[in-house]
Amino acid sequence: MERSEIISLLERYGRGEVKLEAAVDELTSGGVEEMGFATLDTERFRRTGIPEVIYSEGKTPRQLAEITGRLYSKGLPVLATRATREKYEAVLEQVPGAVYHEQARAIVYRKEELPASEKYIAVVSAGTSDIPVSEEAAVTAEFLGSRVERIYDVGVAGIHRLFNRIDLIRNAAVVIVVAGMEGALASVVGGLVSRPVIAVPCSAGYGANFGGISALLAMLNSCAAGVSVVNIDNGFGAACQAHLINS
Amino acid sequence: MERSEIISLLERYGRGEVKLEAAVDELTSGGVEEMGFATLDTERFRRTGIPEVIYSEGKTPRQLAEITGRLYSKGLPVLATRATREKYEAVLEQVPGAVYHEQARAIVYRKEELPASEKYIAVVSAGTSDIPVSEEAAVTAEFLGSRVERIYDVGVAGIHRLFNRIDLIRNAAVVIVVAGMEGALASVVGGLVSRPVIAVPCSAGYGANFGGISALLAMLNSCAAGVSVVNIDNGFGAACQAHLINS
Amino acid sequence: MERSEIISLLERYGRGEVKLEAAVDELTSGGVEEMGFATLDTERFRRTGIPEVIYSEGKTPRQLAEITGRLYSKGLPVLATRATREKYEAVLEQVPGAVYHEQARAIVYRKEELPASEKYIAVVSAGTSDIPVSEEAAVTAEFLGSRVERIYDVGVAGIHRLFNRIDLIRNAAVVIVVAGMEGALASVVGGLVSRPVIAVPCSAGYGANFGGISALLAMLNSCAAGVSVVNIDNGFGAACQAHLINS
Amino acid sequence: MERSEIISLLERYGRGEVKLEAAVDELTSGGVEEMGFATLDTERFRRTGIPEVIYSEGKTPRQLAEITGRLYSKGLPVLATRATREKYEAVLEQVPGAVYHEQARAIVYRKEELPASEKYIAVVSAGTSDIPVSEEAAVTAEFLGSRVERIYDVGVAGIHRLFNRIDLIRNAAVVIVVAGMEGALASVVGGLVSRPVIAVPCSAGYGANFGGISALLAMLNSCAAGVSVVNIDNGFGAACQAHLINS
Amino acid sequence: MERSEIISLLERYGRGEVKLEAAVDELTSGGVEEMGFATLDTERFRRTGIPEVIYSEGKTPRQLAEITGRLYSKGLPVLATRATREKYEAVLEQVPGAVYHEQARAIVYRKEELPASEKYIAVVSAGTSDIPVSEEAAVTAEFLGSRVERIYDVGVAGIHRLFNRIDLIRNAAVVIVVAGMEGALASVVGGLVSRPVIAVPCSAGYGANFGGISALLAMLNSCAAGVSVVNIDNGFGAACQAHLINS
Amino acid sequence: MERSEIISLLERYGRGEVKLEAAVDELTSGGVEEMGFATLDTERFRRTGIPEVIYSEGKTPRQLAEITGRLYSKGLPVLATRATREKYEAVLEQVPGAVYHEQARAIVYRKEELPASEKYIAVVSAGTSDIPVSEEAAVTAEFLGSRVERIYDVGVAGIHRLFNRIDLIRNAAVVIVVAGMEGALASVVGGLVSRPVIAVPCSAGYGANFGGISALLAMLNSCAAGVSVVNIDNGFGAACQAHLINS
Amino acid sequence: MERSEIISLLERYGRGEVKLEAAVDELTSGGVEEMGFATLDTERFRRTGIPEVIYSEGKTPRQLAEITGRLYSKGLPVLATRATREKYEAVLEQVPGAVYHEQARAIVYRKEELPASEKYIAVVSAGTSDIPVSEEAAVTAEFLGSRVERIYDVGVAGIHRLFNRIDLIRNAAVVIVVAGMEGALASVVGGLVSRPVIAVPCSAGYGANFGGISALLAMLNSCAAGVSVVNIDNGFGAACQAHLINS
Amino acid sequence: MERSEIISLLERYGRGEVKLEAAVDELTSGGVEEMGFATLDTERFRRTGIPEVIYSEGKTPRQLAEITGRLYSKGLPVLATRATREKYEAVLEQVPGAVYHEQARAIVYRKEELPASEKYIAVVSAGTSDIPVSEEAAVTAEFLGSRVERIYDVGVAGIHRLFNRIDLIRNAAVVIVVAGMEGALASVVGGLVSRPVIAVPCSAGYGANFGGISALLAMLNSCAAGVSVVNIDNGFGAACQAHLINS
Repeated sequence: MERSEIISLLERYGRGEVKLEAAVDELTSGGVEEMGFATLDTERFRRTGIPEVIYSEGKTPRQLAEITGRLYSKGLPVLATRATREKYEAVLEQVPGAVYHEQARAIVYRKEELPASEKYIAVVSAGTSDIPVSEEAAVTAEFLGSRVERIYDVGVAGIHRLFNRIDLIRNAAVVIVVAGMEGALASVVGGLVSRPVIAVPCSAGYGANFGGISALLAMLNSCAAGVSVVNIDNGFGAACQAHLINS
Repeated sequence: MERSEIISLLERYGRGEVKLEAAVDELTSGGVEEMGFATLDTERFRRTGIPEVIYSEGKTPRQLAEITGRLYSKGLPVLATRATREKYEAVLEQVPGAVYHEQARAIVYRKEELPASEKYIAVVSAGTSDIPVSEEAAVTAEFLGSRVERIYDVGVAGIHRLFNRIDLIRNAAVVIVVAGMEGALASVVGGLVSRPVIAVPCSAGYGANFGGISALLAMLNSCAAGVSVVNIDNGFGAACQAHLINS
Repeated sequence: MERSEIISLLERYGRGEVKLEAAVDELTSGGVEEMGFATLDTERFRRTGIPEVIYSEGKTPRQLAEITGRLYSKGLPVLATRATREKYEAVLEQVPGAVYHEQARAIVYRKEELPASEKYIAVVSAGTSDIPVSEEAAVTAEFLGSRVERIYDVGVAGIHRLFNRIDLIRNAAVVIVVAGMEGALASVVGGLVSRPVIAVPCSAGYGANFGGISALLAMLNSCAAGVSVVNIDNGFGAACQAHLINS
Repeated sequence: MERSEIISLLERYGRGEVKLEAAVDELTSGGVEEMGFATLDTERFRRTGIPEVIYSEGKTPRQLAEITGRLYSKGLPVLATRATREKYEAVLEQVPGAVYHEQARAIVYRKEELPASEKYIAVVSAGTSDIPVSEEAAVTAEFLGSRVERIYDVGVAGIHRLFNRIDLIRNAAVVIVVAGMEGALASVVGGLVSRPVIAVPCSAGYGANFGGISALLAMLNSCAAGVSVVNIDNGFGAACQAHLINS
Repeated sequence: MERSEIISLLERYGRGEVKLEAAVDELTSGGVEEMGFATLDTERFRRTGIPEVIYSEGKTPRQLAEITGRLYSKGLPVLATRATREKYEAVLEQVPGAVYHEQARAIVYRKEELPASEKYIAVVSAGTSDIPVSEEAAVTAEFLGSRVERIYDVGVAGIHRLFNRIDLIRNAAVVIVVAGMEGALASVVGGLVSRPVIAVPCSAGYGANFGGISALLAMLNSCAAGVSVVNIDNGFGAACQAHLINS
Repeated sequence: MERSEIISLLERYGRGEVKLEAAVDELTSGGVEEMGFATLDTERFRRTGIPEVIYSEGKTPRQLAEITGRLYSKGLPVLATRATREKYEAVLEQVPGAVYHEQARAIVYRKEELPASEKYIAVVSAGTSDIPVSEEAAVTAEFLGSRVERIYDVGVAGIHRLFNRIDLIRNAAVVIVVAGMEGALASVVGGLVSRPVIAVPCSAGYGANFGGISALLAMLNSCAAGVSVVNIDNGFGAACQAHLINS
Repeated sequence: MERSEIISLLERYGRGEVKLEAAVDELTSGGVEEMGFATLDTERFRRTGIPEVIYSEGKTPRQLAEITGRLYSKGLPVLATRATREKYEAVLEQVPGAVYHEQARAIVYRKEELPASEKYIAVVSAGTSDIPVSEEAAVTAEFLGSRVERIYDVGVAGIHRLFNRIDLIRNAAVVIVVAGMEGALASVVGGLVSRPVIAVPCSAGYGANFGGISALLAMLNSCAAGVSVVNIDNGFGAACQAHLINS
Repeated sequence: MERSEIISLLERYGRGEVKLEAAVDELTSGGVEEMGFATLDTERFRRTGIPEVIYSEGKTPRQLAEITGRLYSKGLPVLATRATREKYEAVLEQVPGAVYHEQARAIVYRKEELPASEKYIAVVSAGTSDIPVSEEAAVTAEFLGSRVERIYDVGVAGIHRLFNRIDLIRNAAVVIVVAGMEGALASVVGGLVSRPVIAVPCSAGYGANFGGISALLAMLNSCAAGVSVVNIDNGFGAACQAHLINS
């Protein structure tokens, strides 16, 4: 609750328009929807610019359906990440019109189309193994309302593939770079563009990649300024920050 | 070299205005200043929006003075991070007017003042141990041309200190959060604002903080969307990205 | 065997009420129940305030049934943690009346109801993924005889959810905080209450959470005084200590 | 600010005893003392039962003297941990009567003596290398107002030393166990007493102790229920929780 | 090939009893049995006191049967560790009389019984989860020809169980201690006996036991002198060294 | 595009043999084959001496068949590593004549036979568990056009097996050593030969081998000069470098 | 206190030869010498075959002198490991005749010479950097009463140096192998001898040796049976176990 | 000793030209120079192509002077790595003409100049912090007899600096790439050249570079085939392998 809201409330209370108990309640409660096993944060969009999004792993299809159904019934948009097709079937019964993005493993429901935009987010990936995470980033950014351009499989083993498409990357408002293995692409892109670069390390690989640690450390130690990093495989988080920058 | 520049060069070459050898040279060379032990990247600002900045550790005072002197003589601004006062003395002889920021451990030289600005970067820190890194971020951002607001020592052990100053944080264009130990402040701020949050883990602490790993992992796993992370103690990198977002 | 018991034994032996061999046996043996593959510690409750509890993983249903049956036949209460429903079926044949707590994955048998109590343990969790561990803590504490209040899904991404219920947390005798990801909730709660806080890191998450290490390190480095930590996912251990504090 | 305080404030405001602006200020501010480089949390004791304590590392003698002087001038007690003798000299000028505990590396100032008490905290240590951390725990607990019994150098390599003093340990309200190397003492004590055990891993040792990780992991994996753990070498934190349990 | 053998060979060659080519072959070859996918070391027993033993993981049932069959046909004893029952079935067709030890996951074949012996190896384990590794140690030691005494489930959470059986442990020629979790039992036993203690860390557990690292580090840092350590879950290796000490 | 190619292009353009637009295209594009989900690097062989090779994990059988089919249709050789038999079936439909190497898990297609050669690569392995990785190395090297000699199961536990075959190793142009567990074989071979040794750590093993880290660290710390290392289980990479050295 | 001692005590008490209070004292106390900051374990030799030995790091010269003086005054032998020459000077004042072993960093005092012996311990080291740890092992073993043969600088980079001296190693009762870097020597020796091998990893080295972890892991994963391991740089511990085996 | 040498020896022995004892000695001894604290491997060059080189760390100036003096007196070349200037002074007294390379921290002595050569090794480094390691590589390679070309400070943050000099790199016989931080340069170079690339990770950096682990992991996971890796900061090892490839 912000200062201006408190001022307004106190004025109404001072004028007797609001009862003592109601004023206390409003001052001590917030945008919360109790569901027993979950406490929905229904004001998250107003507060952070990103609506409540559901991380599906560890939730049963039924739980996921209940939560998304509740959001749907309140007229809110729905995004569930890391969802299997089985969970999508369950959600679909509560949220007619929900769409499943196979590669991104994401369930999306949005009432209205978003207006076209000049500005866009470039999602750049190093190899074909990085596509699921790249797609999670791209689908999330589109869900949030940003335009996305995809530039996939342009890793440094054949760096001319990157130079072929460098203009599309340079003209983006913000760049997401998705890479596994040695994650070198983030530094190379960071050294070539004048826009913020958000790096997403990927877990794809084997041996001393240690589930994405090799790319994570490489990206954290990028010699290019202007590169920040999110969790391994966290396409969703990268898209959230990119969208906040883009808007 | 970008496509439009290549087109222009080829046209001039086609018209005989440029010799073959010169055209080849231009097509194969770039903005590079050879110094024997170093290869300055003099076009970095044009390419990435961030000028070449000097990381002072591992360089002798003499080397540092030479490099900064070279930048100065070309009329370029100078920022040297992680510099001791002894190195500053050496630089001062080559770069008259250079200033030393004690807490930030930074040497700064800039010819002209930057114009005032509505937009600003908020630098938020959890405790007094985080001040050197916070100041590195703040001084770097100011060097790059951004306005900065400092909100220090508002960690979650006394969370009301944060709420006291939340409006100043919420109105920033982008927020840098600097925290050591458990790094919780990044998530708490991330859950309260609608602007991008760049988290800087600090190495201050002992035992199982493992030189900043505890804060680093906490920030990478932030439950708040819209948070990205830079290297441990990397106030400089956070400021670069924040400035790119702010401008 | 404590000093007072040794004195009493020696006095009886001195009066000839106890034979030499029997006195030696009593002085050199203890509360032990040999079962071939297991050595039950039947005096653990008298010694530590916590009865022998069975960790089910790595035990076959038959082994589990045998051990719990032995405890049941001696009139002792039964708690088996990390048990599957299949193991519960096997136990039920030996321990009529045993109850299975699905979310907590716990088998519980207790003869008498525990008396009502003013004092209680607050179990606070950050997200829905933390519920299995939270329930293990809650069910264990109730089994041991403590009253429990559950406050779930109040993590720092929407910190007002926590403030909504802060009174219930502050009035507890001891607080258990269960959180995965960055584990920030433990520090935030620790900074708001004047009771001991026991933090339980959760393994739920992915990437750089490294199976709960991110939350574990965050909790060990809590900037709030008065916070201690148990093993990752160890709701059982947290409940044991909380019960000892509560009683 | 708690609900009852908000109710009282609103009532006073409703009766016109408080002005709108003042009511808003009170609703949005807290117990904070701004010092430029630090933001003192002067209500921490009322909120958490533990007053603001100063961690001296990374602070200059002058900074430490300023902060402790400010607390002293407000009539608050002073504890500065991890302090060198040099820092103590600086503090002494601002805080007459401050005492330096060499082994504990702690500066303490307290106006009045604390009343005698039946209940006490047992601080048990494994070896002579653990004494600095043990003393930090003991001195902190005494500063907070708890009585302490010290039982030092009773590690498991000669376990009869522990059994010799087991009664003193068993009768404590809460037990702090300080141990480095393999940290086995925590489990052994945990299996012998019916009071909460707080384990403090020590960094003393070499090689595969990895600065205390060996003891930390051992304590987190204790087979004895009722054991919780604090950060490596964190005698202070253990004492805080022990005091909250003891009081 | 040892010096005495070389002398003997040269003497025979000098007397013309051995041809040049045969002498060279003998000087350059060794006790090797080529099998295409494997190179059996048939002189290992003569050289190291331990015959060639087969580690079954990663080998197909057919490969295992071939190798064990080859050893059997040469009159050598057979031990295959980490074997499933399915692999045992395959081996049984090549090695009539082979026995499968379920808990130890070991296939054993030995022609003659070993003579009784005064000296024995004590295998001591902390909990029921440690039985598979303990049995691997016990069965291996018996296969090698040592007498074994088993003392199971006597971990430090109920340390009186250990004292009950301390005489049997103290009279052994060498002691193997098997423990997971915090591995404290190795130190406690090491402090009570005057014989070499070989510690085997177990992977059983969860969370911060990190697959046995907690016990491994604890055992490497044992405060009791005279304790050495083998790989996590390596009951086989512990038995080999124990047998060499015992014989 | 190399300098000589640029010169030639400019000359042709200067003579009017190439149009402006075509010259620009050629200067800004490269050997790239866009496939939507993949961007084939068709000039990789000309540039690096190693053709584009497909890493099969994470690709569906259909994707793999499409990519290999595309290479086949362009007359290029095909190597797909880490492929299952199921994926081979799919590939075979697009690439008639493709062969599946079971142990190496590799799909190979090559039009013409390679000429015989004096020079060869020695692939030396420590144990039978190392055969899959050794075969990946051997098959890859043969695919690239090198002759290979296999020396398997000659680890240091029976070091005479190695000395038996040392001549074959010493006469190689380059030696690949594949070993798991403690990886000692690389150092021993490195100390005996005067050719480059490429060490491949294997993940086979258990406990403190940590998925191959033990062998990886051992090989990186080899006391023998002239040893370099590739990723854990990366037989493919070792073969590539060995082939470049051999040719 | 052992069973036979308890029986004897009870019989004396039953005959009235011992008073009740004295019997209780004896039953509840042990061989302990209280020194305030230390609790000497004066019966350790009788119990474990190894007398109390002093680890000097973290102790002041004065503390060390006091402890060793106390042992000396009781006629006990003195060994202080990891001691500087400065500490030796302090000890010498309390323990006339104490000797300082520079390379081993050990202070030794022993009244009588030990008798000559056929049996001996071989201490084998890989390189010159391993000499301090090797000497700690050798000096400790000699202090305990074992004969020692030193075989230094015979690492696998020049493996013929080892074969030159293999007979001296093979004839030992037990072998200690000290090696840093990749620690391969332990496995090579383990594969050549029929006596127990105790491996000591050394911290000497740089980079990915991680302070001895490379050698530690290599030794734990030794492919040779019969090898066990002690802590990094723990020559003392290896000597203790070797002496127990040797005697 | 090789087969041909054994044949020759046996023939001479058969003809009575060699005595039995001498033949046995020769068959059982090797190229070893005993120095008490060190065992020089004087045949290392003949065996491995690399002469015995001295690692100076952990050796006193006097020890270093003795060892290098011994090599000098036998007419052998001398290279001592990681040497301080102080150690050089000591060496100079024993080895007149020895030269000290400040940046490489190497002492070099070589009698004759090496002949000029067409083939060369390219040493490529990413930044100025990598120069000490790069120089260690360059000086070592030159000592061994290879020609070296240095291409320094061409990291990926300004990738055009690399393209400027790509021809010099492409024409090398083998390429050494030295890089810290994210180590991306190795992959980029590996994707551009058709010669073997040996990557050297550097420890320069801070925070999550973990002393060079970030670059080490990145290089091990290089997406470019044909890249192998040596230990962190091991310029010496890279040069040895490069020289073996080059010659």
